[in-house]
Amino acid sequence: VRNSQDRLAAETSIETAEIARTTASLLDAINASDLAGVLAMWSDDGALMPPQHPSVHGRTEIERFFSRLFQQPGSHFSFTFSQIHVSGDVAFERLEYAASVRSGQEESEVRDIGKGPHVYRRQPNESWKLAMDIWNSDTPATVAE
Amino acid sequence: VRNSQDRLAAETSIETAEIARTTASLLDAINASDLAGVLAMWSDDGALMPPQHPSVHGRTEIERFFSRLFQQPGSHFSFTFSQIHVSGDVAFERLEYAASVRSGQEESEVRDIGKGPHVYRRQPNESWKLAMDIWNSDTPATVAE
Repeated sequence: VRNSQDRLAAETSIETAEIARTTASLLDAINASDLAGVLAMWSDDGALMPPQHPSVHGRTEIERFFSRLFQQPGSHFSFTFSQIHVSGDVAFERLEYAASVRSGQEESEVRDIGKGPHVYRRQPNESWKLAMDIWNSDTPATVAE
Repeated sequence: VRNSQDRLAAETSIETAEIARTTASLLDAINASDLAGVLAMWSDDGALMPPQHPSVHGRTEIERFFSRLFQQPGSHFSFTFSQIHVSGDVAFERLEYAASVRSGQEESEVRDIGKGPHVYRRQPNESWKLAMDIWNSDTPATVAE
């Protein structure tokens, strides 16, 4: 007979693996400028909080944000650290990232490192969807010349 | 006989009020440059993620960060929006802020608005302590002149 503590640990491990897979899919979609792929990871009422930009709430606004972002492809993101904690219907992932970002009309490339969490919420169909994403840079602000 | 759904709702409401009070105390401590007051709100292994600064992990680093910050008093923060969600031993608060920040040797004042979450974790003694705090500005980076 498995006791409930063992069962909890096993369930948490399965959920942690599911969330790691979801984050990997999200990263692939972002690096491929795949709008439908990114939107598939988000819950309907999610909140995206980009630096130097107001909050972006809900599927329509999130679609508009990434649609604009993907007009200039060539940026690349990777996660250099991930720690996942599951509690009830919420999962919280603390991340560190490295990025090279295309920006400006001259297509300059800016390298960046930073950090932030993902918050996932379990959906009625048991899938995990992003409820919140926020990040900021570790480095002093760079200003377009 | 109260059913478990009613009991859950009542407990969540009490917890939500506790977290709102904790955030209010944290804000008072920050605005008063009260180092002990700020540290009392943090869990031992918390992660503070300030913009344009590397992650700050654990009580010793968090104390050093706020100790430096409070060497230049006069900044003022307020929260203009709060939404709290409790799930098991984790509570997640989405916030928007307005701030006037003293910075630089000339004691210039920079106004800022932005957003970010608090993540709280329930401690063995039932109190809620900050496990994570991250924020970023809504506005373009300002550069010291």
